[in-house]
Amino acid sequence: MQDIIQISTQKQEGLYDITSQVRALVKKSGVNSGMASVYIQGSTAAIMIQENWDQSVQNDVINLLKKLIPSGVWQHDAQDNNGDAHLKAGIVGPGETIPVINGELGLSTWQNIFVCEFDGPREARKIVVTIFNSDK
Amino acid sequence: MQDIIQISTQKQEGLYDITSQVRALVKKSGVNSGMASVYIQGSTAAIMIQENWDQSVQNDVINLLKKLIPSGVWQHDAQDNNGDAHLKAGIVGPGETIPVINGELGLSTWQNIFVCEFDGPREARKIVVTIFNSDK
Amino acid sequence: MQDIIQISTQKQEGLYDITSQVRALVKKSGVNSGMASVYIQGSTAAIMIQENWDQSVQNDVINLLKKLIPSGVWQHDAQDNNGDAHLKAGIVGPGETIPVINGELGLSTWQNIFVCEFDGPREARKIVVTIFNSDK
Repeated sequence: MQDIIQISTQKQEGLYDITSQVRALVKKSGVNSGMASVYIQGSTAAIMIQENWDQSVQNDVINLLKKLIPSGVWQHDAQDNNGDAHLKAGIVGPGETIPVINGELGLSTWQNIFVCEFDGPREARKIVVTIFNSDK
Repeated sequence: MQDIIQISTQKQEGLYDITSQVRALVKKSGVNSGMASVYIQGSTAAIMIQENWDQSVQNDVINLLKKLIPSGVWQHDAQDNNGDAHLKAGIVGPGETIPVINGELGLSTWQNIFVCEFDGPREARKIVVTIFNSDK
Repeated sequence: MQDIIQISTQKQEGLYDITSQVRALVKKSGVNSGMASVYIQGSTAAIMIQENWDQSVQNDVINLLKKLIPSGVWQHDAQDNNGDAHLKAGIVGPGETIPVINGELGLSTWQNIFVCEFDGPREARKIVVTIFNSDK
Protein backbone atom coordinates (compact mmCIF):
# COMPACT_ATOMS: atom_id res chain seq x y z
CA MET A 1 0.00 0.00 0.00
CA GLN A 2 1.13 3.53 -0.71
CA ASP A 3 -0.33 6.81 0.49
CA ILE A 4 0.70 10.42 1.02
CA ILE A 5 0.60 12.41 4.26
CA GLN A 6 0.51 16.16 3.81
CA ILE A 7 1.38 18.68 6.51
CA SER A 8 1.94 22.42 6.68
CA THR A 9 4.78 23.93 8.69
CA GLN A 10 4.52 27.20 10.64
CA LYS A 11 8.10 28.16 11.37
CA GLN A 12 11.40 28.42 9.54
CA GLU A 13 12.75 25.42 11.45
CA GLY A 14 11.05 22.85 13.60
CA LEU A 15 10.14 19.19 14.15
CA TYR A 16 6.62 17.91 13.44
CA ASP A 17 5.42 14.56 14.82
CA ILE A 18 3.67 12.44 12.17
CA THR A 19 3.63 9.15 14.11
CA SER A 20 -0.14 8.95 14.47
CA GLN A 21 -0.72 9.51 10.75
CA VAL A 22 1.79 6.77 9.81
CA ARG A 23 0.25 4.46 12.42
CA ALA A 24 -3.19 4.95 10.84
CA LEU A 25 -1.84 3.98 7.41
CA VAL A 26 -0.22 0.83 8.82
CA LYS A 27 -3.57 -0.17 10.32
CA LYS A 28 -5.36 0.58 7.03
CA SER A 29 -2.86 -1.55 5.08
CA GLY A 30 -3.71 -4.70 7.02
CA VAL A 31 -0.05 -5.73 6.88
CA ASN A 32 0.84 -7.92 9.85
CA SER A 33 4.60 -8.33 9.46
CA GLY A 34 6.71 -6.10 7.25
CA MET A 35 7.96 -2.56 6.95
CA ALA A 36 6.83 1.05 6.45
CA SER A 37 9.02 3.27 4.31
CA VAL A 38 8.53 6.94 5.23
CA TYR A 39 10.00 9.38 2.69
CA ILE A 40 9.69 13.17 2.48
CA GLN A 41 9.79 14.98 -0.86
CA GLY A 42 11.71 18.27 -1.04
CA SER A 43 15.42 18.84 -0.50
CA THR A 44 15.20 21.14 2.55
CA ALA A 45 13.34 18.81 4.92
CA ALA A 46 14.10 15.41 6.44
CA ILE A 47 12.72 12.52 8.50
CA MET A 48 14.16 11.77 11.95
CA ILE A 49 13.23 9.17 14.56
CA GLN A 50 13.44 10.92 17.94
CA GLU A 51 11.97 11.09 21.44
CA ASN A 52 8.69 12.95 21.99
CA TRP A 53 8.39 13.17 25.80
CA ASP A 54 8.31 16.94 25.54
CA GLN A 55 9.59 19.74 23.30
CA SER A 56 13.16 19.67 24.66
CA VAL A 57 14.83 17.16 22.32
CA GLN A 58 13.14 18.77 19.33
CA ASN A 59 14.60 22.16 20.26
CA ASP A 60 17.97 20.52 20.87
CA VAL A 61 17.94 19.00 17.35
CA ILE A 62 17.35 22.41 15.76
CA ASN A 63 19.98 24.10 17.96
CA LEU A 64 22.60 21.40 17.34
CA LEU A 65 22.18 21.61 13.57
CA LYS A 66 22.28 25.42 13.64
CA LYS A 67 25.63 25.21 15.47
CA LEU A 68 27.16 22.52 13.21
CA ILE A 69 25.79 23.97 9.97
CA PRO A 70 25.58 27.78 10.28
CA SER A 71 23.58 29.80 7.78
CA GLY A 72 24.96 32.33 5.32
CA VAL A 73 28.38 30.84 4.57
CA TRP A 74 27.68 28.44 1.65
CA GLN A 75 28.20 28.66 -2.12
CA HIS A 76 24.54 27.78 -2.64
CA ASP A 77 23.47 30.91 -0.72
CA ALA A 78 24.20 32.89 -3.90
CA GLN A 79 21.17 31.13 -5.48
CA ASP A 80 18.58 30.68 -2.77
CA ASN A 81 20.09 31.81 0.53
CA ASN A 82 19.16 28.41 2.01
CA GLY A 83 22.40 26.42 1.69
CA ASP A 84 22.27 25.42 5.34
CA ALA A 85 18.78 23.93 4.90
CA HIS A 86 19.96 21.71 2.02
CA LEU A 87 22.96 20.54 4.03
CA LYS A 88 20.91 19.73 7.13
CA ALA A 89 18.38 17.82 4.99
CA GLY A 90 21.15 15.86 3.25
CA ILE A 91 22.87 14.84 6.48
CA VAL A 92 19.68 13.80 8.33
CA GLY A 93 18.24 12.20 5.21
CA PRO A 94 14.76 12.12 3.63
CA GLY A 95 13.64 8.70 4.79
CA GLU A 96 13.44 6.01 7.42
CA THR A 97 12.19 2.43 7.17
CA ILE A 98 10.39 1.14 10.25
CA PRO A 99 9.37 -2.46 10.88
CA VAL A 100 5.72 -3.47 11.14
CA ILE A 101 5.27 -6.09 13.91
CA ASN A 102 1.94 -7.81 14.66
CA GLY A 103 0.11 -5.21 12.62
CA GLU A 104 1.65 -2.26 14.49
CA LEU A 105 4.56 0.12 13.85
CA GLY A 106 7.61 -1.41 15.55
CA LEU A 107 8.68 1.78 17.32
CA SER A 108 9.78 1.60 20.96
CA THR A 109 8.07 3.69 23.66
CA TRP A 110 10.20 6.78 23.10
CA GLN A 111 10.60 6.61 19.34
CA ASN A 112 8.45 8.91 17.25
CA ILE A 113 8.58 9.85 13.57
CA PHE A 114 9.31 13.52 12.90
CA VAL A 115 9.39 15.73 9.85
CA CYS A 116 12.35 18.12 10.22
CA GLU A 117 11.52 21.42 8.53
CA PHE A 118 14.66 23.42 7.71
CA ASP A 119 13.27 26.00 5.26
CA GLY A 120 9.73 26.85 6.30
CA PRO A 121 7.08 27.87 6.70
CA ARG A 122 5.61 25.71 3.91
CA GLU A 123 1.98 25.20 3.02
CA ALA A 124 2.43 21.61 1.91
CA ARG A 125 5.16 19.11 2.79
CA LYS A 126 4.41 15.71 1.27
CA ILE A 127 5.50 12.48 2.92
CA VAL A 128 5.15 9.23 0.96
CA VAL A 129 4.39 6.16 3.08
CA THR A 130 4.82 2.76 1.41
CA ILE A 131 4.02 -0.40 3.34
CA PHE A 132 5.42 -3.83 2.51
CA ASN A 133 4.48 -7.33 3.63
CA SER A 134 7.35 -9.67 4.53
CA ASP A 135 5.12 -12.72 4.92
CA LYS A 136 4.58 -13.28 1.25
CA MET B 1 10.71 -13.13 7.52
CA GLN B 2 11.07 -11.09 10.67
CA ASP B 3 13.13 -11.82 13.78
CA ILE B 4 14.69 -9.98 16.70
CA ILE B 5 18.38 -9.90 17.69
CA GLN B 6 18.99 -9.01 21.33
CA ILE B 7 22.33 -7.82 22.68
CA SER B 8 23.58 -6.36 25.95
CA THR B 9 26.00 -3.43 26.04
CA GLN B 10 28.79 -3.09 28.62
CA LYS B 11 29.87 0.53 28.36
CA GLN B 12 28.25 3.96 28.22
CA GLU B 13 29.26 4.32 24.56
CA GLY B 14 30.55 1.83 22.06
CA LEU B 15 30.00 0.01 18.77
CA TYR B 16 28.87 -3.63 18.71
CA ASP B 17 29.22 -5.74 15.55
CA ILE B 18 26.02 -7.71 14.76
CA THR B 19 26.92 -8.74 11.20
CA SER B 20 27.13 -12.47 11.91
CA GLN B 21 23.70 -12.53 13.59
CA VAL B 22 22.09 -10.68 10.65
CA ARG B 23 23.89 -12.99 8.20
CA ALA B 24 22.44 -16.02 9.99
CA LEU B 25 18.90 -14.64 9.67
CA VAL B 26 19.38 -13.99 5.95
CA LYS B 27 20.46 -17.62 5.51
CA LYS B 28 17.48 -18.83 7.57
CA SER B 29 15.07 -16.75 5.46
CA GLY B 30 15.96 -18.55 2.25
CA VAL B 31 15.65 -15.26 0.37
CA ASN B 32 17.88 -15.22 -2.70
CA SER B 33 17.48 -11.66 -3.97
CA GLY B 34 16.06 -8.86 -1.87
CA MET B 35 16.81 -6.76 1.17
CA ALA B 36 17.35 -6.91 4.93
CA SER B 37 15.97 -4.03 7.01
CA VAL B 38 17.91 -3.70 10.28
CA TYR B 39 16.20 -1.43 12.84
CA ILE B 40 17.07 -0.77 16.48
CA GLN B 41 14.40 0.11 19.02
CA GLY B 42 15.23 2.77 21.62
CA SER B 43 15.98 6.44 21.02
CA THR B 44 19.57 6.51 22.37
CA ALA B 45 21.12 3.91 20.06
CA ALA B 46 21.63 3.65 16.31
CA ILE B 47 22.73 1.40 13.44
CA MET B 48 25.86 2.27 11.43
CA ILE B 49 27.60 0.48 8.55
CA GLN B 50 31.32 0.77 9.20
CA GLU B 51 34.71 -0.95 8.79
CA ASN B 52 35.67 -3.69 11.23
CA TRP B 53 39.36 -4.31 10.49
CA ASP B 54 40.22 -3.41 14.06
CA GLN B 55 38.91 -1.27 16.93
CA SER B 56 40.27 2.01 15.54
CA VAL B 57 37.35 3.25 13.43
CA GLN B 58 34.90 2.30 16.16
CA ASN B 59 36.80 4.45 18.67
CA ASP B 60 37.01 7.24 16.10
CA VAL B 61 33.20 7.18 15.65
CA ILE B 62 32.64 7.61 19.40
CA ASN B 63 35.28 10.34 19.67
CA LEU B 64 33.98 12.27 16.65
CA LEU B 65 30.41 12.28 17.98
CA LYS B 66 31.57 13.32 21.46
CA LYS B 67 33.34 16.29 19.88
CA LEU B 68 30.46 17.34 17.60
CA ILE B 69 27.72 16.70 20.18
CA PRO B 70 29.12 17.42 23.67
CA SER B 71 27.24 16.22 26.76
CA GLY B 72 25.65 18.42 29.40
CA VAL B 73 24.59 21.42 27.31
CA TRP B 74 21.10 20.43 26.08
CA GLN B 75 17.55 21.36 27.14
CA HIS B 76 16.71 17.67 27.44
CA ASP B 77 19.42 17.21 30.10
CA ALA B 78 16.96 18.72 32.60
CA GLN B 79 14.88 15.52 32.20
CA ASP B 80 17.29 12.63 31.75
CA ASN B 81 20.80 14.06 31.50
CA ASN B 82 21.21 12.19 28.20
CA GLY B 83 20.41 14.84 25.58
CA ASP B 84 23.63 14.11 23.72
CA ALA B 85 22.70 10.42 23.38
CA HIS B 86 19.33 11.29 21.79
CA LEU B 87 20.98 13.70 19.36
CA LYS B 88 23.68 11.21 18.32
CA ALA B 89 21.02 8.53 17.79
CA GLY B 90 18.86 10.87 15.73
CA ILE B 91 21.70 11.95 13.46
CA VAL B 92 23.11 8.45 12.84
CA GLY B 93 19.61 6.97 12.60
CA PRO B 94 18.00 3.75 13.86
CA GLY B 95 18.12 1.70 10.68
CA GLU B 96 19.86 0.59 7.52
CA THR B 97 18.57 -1.47 4.61
CA ILE B 98 21.09 -3.82 3.04
CA PRO B 99 20.63 -5.76 -0.17
CA VAL B 100 20.51 -9.56 -0.23
CA ILE B 101 22.40 -10.89 -3.28
CA ASN B 102 22.54 -14.59 -4.19
CA GLY B 103 21.29 -15.53 -0.74
CA GLU B 104 23.97 -13.51 1.07
CA LEU B 105 24.11 -10.05 2.67
CA GLY B 106 25.37 -7.65 -0.02
CA LEU B 107 28.02 -6.01 2.17
CA SER B 108 31.47 -5.35 0.73
CA THR B 109 34.61 -6.73 2.37
CA TRP B 110 35.03 -3.87 4.83
CA GLN B 111 31.39 -3.16 5.59
CA ASN B 112 29.98 -4.48 8.86
CA ILE B 113 26.72 -3.74 10.69
CA PHE B 114 27.17 -2.08 14.07
CA VAL B 115 24.88 -1.15 16.93
CA CYS B 116 25.98 2.25 18.26
CA GLU B 117 25.30 2.45 21.98
CA PHE B 118 25.16 6.05 23.23
CA ASP B 119 23.51 5.60 26.65
CA GLY B 120 24.65 2.26 28.09
CA PRO B 121 25.28 -0.07 29.63
CA ARG B 122 21.96 -1.73 28.78
CA GLU B 123 20.88 -5.28 29.52
CA ALA B 124 18.79 -5.61 26.37
CA ARG B 125 18.98 -3.70 23.09
CA LYS B 126 16.53 -5.12 20.55
CA ILE B 127 17.22 -5.04 16.82
CA VAL B 128 14.39 -5.97 14.44
CA VAL B 129 15.52 -7.67 11.23
CA THR B 130 12.95 -7.94 8.43
CA ILE B 131 13.88 -9.67 5.18
CA PHE B 132 12.14 -9.09 1.86
CA ASN B 133 12.17 -10.94 -1.43
CA SER B 134 12.43 -8.85 -4.60
CA ASP B 135 11.88 -11.77 -6.97
CA LYS B 136 8.19 -12.00 -6.48
CA MET C 1 14.40 -6.75 -9.51
CA GLN C 2 18.00 -6.23 -8.57
CA ASP C 3 20.81 -4.73 -10.61
CA ILE C 4 24.18 -3.06 -10.12
CA ILE C 5 25.24 0.41 -11.30
CA GLN C 6 28.98 0.88 -11.63
CA ILE C 7 30.70 4.25 -11.77
CA SER C 8 34.28 5.49 -11.64
CA THR C 9 35.27 8.54 -9.61
CA GLN C 10 37.89 11.08 -10.71
CA LYS C 11 38.73 13.02 -7.59
CA GLN C 12 39.53 12.33 -3.94
CA GLU C 13 36.17 13.75 -2.89
CA GLY C 14 33.07 14.61 -4.83
CA LEU C 15 29.39 13.96 -5.49
CA TYR C 16 28.24 11.99 -8.56
CA ASP C 17 24.63 12.10 -9.75
CA ILE C 18 23.24 8.61 -10.50
CA THR C 19 19.56 9.58 -10.73
CA SER C 20 19.17 8.78 -14.43
CA GLN C 21 20.68 5.30 -14.02
CA VAL C 22 18.35 4.49 -11.11
CA ARG C 23 15.41 5.90 -13.07
CA ALA C 24 16.21 3.57 -15.97
CA LEU C 25 16.22 0.54 -13.66
CA VAL C 26 12.84 1.52 -12.19
CA LYS C 27 11.42 1.70 -15.70
CA LYS C 28 12.97 -1.67 -16.60
CA SER C 29 11.49 -3.27 -13.45
CA GLY C 30 7.92 -2.54 -14.49
CA VAL C 31 7.05 -1.85 -10.85
CA ASN C 32 4.18 0.61 -10.58
CA SER C 33 3.97 1.24 -6.84
CA GLY C 34 6.75 0.35 -4.44
CA MET C 35 10.30 1.30 -3.51
CA ALA C 36 13.86 1.40 -4.81
CA SER C 37 16.63 0.59 -2.34
CA VAL C 38 19.91 2.22 -3.44
CA TYR C 39 22.97 0.89 -1.57
CA ILE C 40 26.67 1.55 -2.18
CA GLN C 41 29.29 -1.06 -1.35
CA GLY C 42 32.56 0.13 0.19
CA SER C 43 33.05 1.83 3.56
CA THR C 44 34.45 5.17 2.31
CA ALA C 45 31.53 6.25 0.11
CA ALA C 46 27.88 7.03 0.75
CA ILE C 47 24.51 7.83 -0.85
CA MET C 48 22.89 11.24 -0.33
CA ILE C 49 19.68 12.77 -1.68
CA GLN C 50 20.47 16.37 -2.57
CA GLU C 51 19.67 19.24 -4.93
CA ASN C 52 21.25 19.28 -8.39
CA TRP C 53 20.44 22.74 -9.74
CA ASP C 54 24.16 23.43 -10.11
CA GLN C 55 27.48 22.41 -8.55
CA SER C 56 27.11 24.68 -5.49
CA VAL C 57 25.36 22.38 -3.01
CA GLN C 58 27.67 19.51 -3.98
CA ASN C 59 30.72 21.64 -3.16
CA ASP C 60 29.07 22.77 0.07
CA VAL C 61 28.53 19.13 1.14
CA ILE C 62 32.22 18.33 0.67
CA ASN C 63 33.33 21.53 2.43
CA LEU C 64 30.96 21.05 5.37
CA LEU C 65 32.15 17.48 5.97
CA LYS C 66 35.81 18.51 5.68
CA LYS C 67 35.19 21.10 8.40
CA LEU C 68 33.24 18.81 10.74
CA ILE C 69 35.47 15.76 10.18
CA PRO C 70 39.05 16.94 9.53
CA SER C 71 41.61 14.54 8.08
CA GLY C 72 44.74 13.30 9.81
CA VAL C 73 43.58 13.21 13.43
CA TRP C 74 42.04 9.71 13.77
CA GLN C 75 43.24 6.43 15.28
CA HIS C 76 42.45 4.68 12.00
CA ASP C 77 44.92 6.92 10.14
CA ALA C 78 47.70 4.68 11.51
CA GLN C 79 46.36 1.92 9.21
CA ASP C 80 45.14 3.57 6.02
CA ASN C 81 45.38 7.33 6.49
CA ASN C 82 41.69 7.59 5.54
CA GLY C 83 39.95 7.73 8.91
CA ASP C 84 38.02 10.83 7.90
CA ALA C 85 36.62 9.06 4.81
CA HIS C 86 35.26 6.18 6.93
CA LEU C 87 33.66 8.60 9.39
CA LYS C 88 32.03 10.69 6.66
CA ALA C 89 30.68 7.52 5.02
CA GLY C 90 29.32 6.21 8.33
CA ILE C 91 27.53 9.44 9.19
CA VAL C 92 25.97 9.99 5.74
CA GLY C 93 25.21 6.28 5.36
CA PRO C 94 25.47 3.81 2.46
CA GLY C 95 21.85 3.72 1.40
CA GLU C 96 18.55 5.43 0.77
CA THR C 97 15.14 3.96 -0.01
CA ILE C 98 13.03 5.96 -2.43
CA PRO C 99 9.37 5.37 -3.23
CA VAL C 100 8.22 4.31 -6.70
CA ILE C 101 4.97 6.09 -7.62
CA ASN C 102 3.03 5.41 -10.83
CA GLY C 103 6.04 3.63 -12.30
CA GLU C 104 8.42 6.54 -11.62
CA LEU C 105 10.95 7.37 -8.90
CA GLY C 106 9.09 9.44 -6.28
CA LEU C 107 11.73 12.18 -6.05
CA SER C 108 10.61 15.81 -5.96
CA THR C 109 11.85 18.34 -8.53
CA TRP C 110 15.03 19.20 -6.63
CA GLN C 111 15.89 15.78 -5.24
CA ASN C 112 18.61 13.80 -6.95
CA ILE C 113 20.50 10.66 -5.92
CA PHE C 114 24.23 11.17 -5.41
CA VAL C 115 27.17 8.92 -4.72
CA CYS C 116 29.44 10.70 -2.22
CA GLU C 117 33.05 9.71 -2.86
CA PHE C 118 35.27 10.36 0.16
CA ASP C 119 38.38 8.32 -0.75
CA GLY C 120 38.85 8.46 -4.51
CA PRO C 121 39.65 8.34 -7.27
CA ARG C 122 38.28 4.81 -7.70
CA GLU C 123 37.94 2.82 -10.89
CA ALA C 124 34.78 1.04 -9.79
CA ARG C 125 32.20 2.01 -7.18
CA LYS C 126 29.30 -0.46 -7.15
CA ILE C 127 25.78 0.59 -6.25
CA VAL C 128 23.16 -2.13 -5.73
CA VAL C 129 19.62 -1.15 -6.73
CA THR C 130 16.80 -3.41 -5.54
CA ILE C 131 13.22 -2.64 -6.52
CA PHE C 132 10.16 -3.84 -4.61
CA ASN C 133 6.49 -3.95 -5.45
CA SER C 134 4.05 -2.88 -2.74
CA ASP C 135 0.93 -3.89 -4.69
CA LYS C 136 1.32 -7.59 -4.18
